[in-house]
Amino acid sequence: MRNRISPRSGTAFEIRKGQLLTVIDPEGEQVSDLVAFNAADRSERISSGRSIDYASRLFLTTDDILYSNRSNPMFTIVEDEVGRHDFTLTPCSSDTFRKIYGDTDPHHGCQGNLERALEPYGIGGDDIPVAFNVFMHVSVDGDTGEIAVLPPKSRPGEKTVFRAEMDLVVGMTACSAGQSNNFRFKPIEFAVSD
Amino acid sequence: MRNRISPRSGTAFEIRKGQLLTVIDPEGEQVSDLVAFNAADRSERISSGRSIDYASRLFLTTDDILYSNRSNPMFTIVEDEVGRHDFTLTPCSSDTFRKIYGDTDPHHGCQGNLERALEPYGIGGDDIPVAFNVFMHVSVDGDTGEIAVLPPKSRPGEKTVFRAEMDLVVGMTACSAGQSNNFRFKPIEFAVSD
Repeated sequence: MRNRISPRSGTAFEIRKGQLLTVIDPEGEQVSDLVAFNAADRSERISSGRSIDYASRLFLTTDDILYSNRSNPMFTIVEDEVGRHDFTLTPCSSDTFRKIYGDTDPHHGCQGNLERALEPYGIGGDDIPVAFNVFMHVSVDGDTGEIAVLPPKSRPGEKTVFRAEMDLVVGMTACSAGQSNNFRFKPIEFAVSD
Repeated sequence: MRNRISPRSGTAFEIRKGQLLTVIDPEGEQVSDLVAFNAADRSERISSGRSIDYASRLFLTTDDILYSNRSNPMFTIVEDEVGRHDFTLTPCSSDTFRKIYGDTDPHHGCQGNLERALEPYGIGGDDIPVAFNVFMHVSVDGDTGEIAVLPPKSRPGEKTVFRAEMDLVVGMTACSAGQSNNFRFKPIEFAVSD
């Protein structure tokens, strides 16, 4: 069964160890911010710093593992039709829109959507870390360190599949930031299967 | 007054808004992991993801701001004799040494040192985020995303100076990972001044 996340919104759900989470970009060029917490102890959360360190790579794809802050595997990427995601940036927020876009009455962003979706699980906004930004295309200049947010490489219907390595609470969005999504806000679809 | 952090150890202390924190590498080629928390509300903590997003750059130096997870400035880098630091990796830990170095009886690392130093401030190990790794030299291949940990560029006596933008609890180490420090464990010195 496919679930749909409406443009500029978010959701949260539980997934059991061994289940597959398939993230689909139905229209193409749309980012989904993904965060994960140990369902049994939500102080254990996804960690960009541990994952990048163990992979020795900023860009993670098939066979790479997303680790927790306690160095336990949370997800393994088992299939990846897109091959480019970001793991350096926090979810966009009203502050992002104020600072980067100059919005005076900013949208609450992926941060706001994740806070609302994760609140019933007892997870607060301060505990939302750097997300695994599915389909987000951030280029890096190795000499200067400059980054640039480019249109996602995902084409309509392409997907990335994650296997849960522990019971998880997952937060996911259809990203709300203009530049990340080639300035058109589209839905995200996902499916959980055994 | 200069304070000394012995090789492979760590410390924590409070610093007031407006004070300067000078981090000195007395012998050269030594990393110091730096984390910071709002002294008045320790759920607010340093955020690599916010800082990199707002700077549009992975490598931060003079005039760059280290932001919190709530998008508030925590530190401004006001002087930087070295010019190269890392803001992508979490503190080294017993798991790091087990996974990356293959150690069977691993050192507790910067993670363990920060946990011990921050425990009196009510800050737990799960809340230690990606650190600002002062003097850590991580190269990035912009095409593949591969990273490599190289010897720090810091020469004996060189320093980086941070201005506190709020009252902070600061955790700092003399880093415990071989590769990060050109395989010799040296002290770090620091000074707090008005």
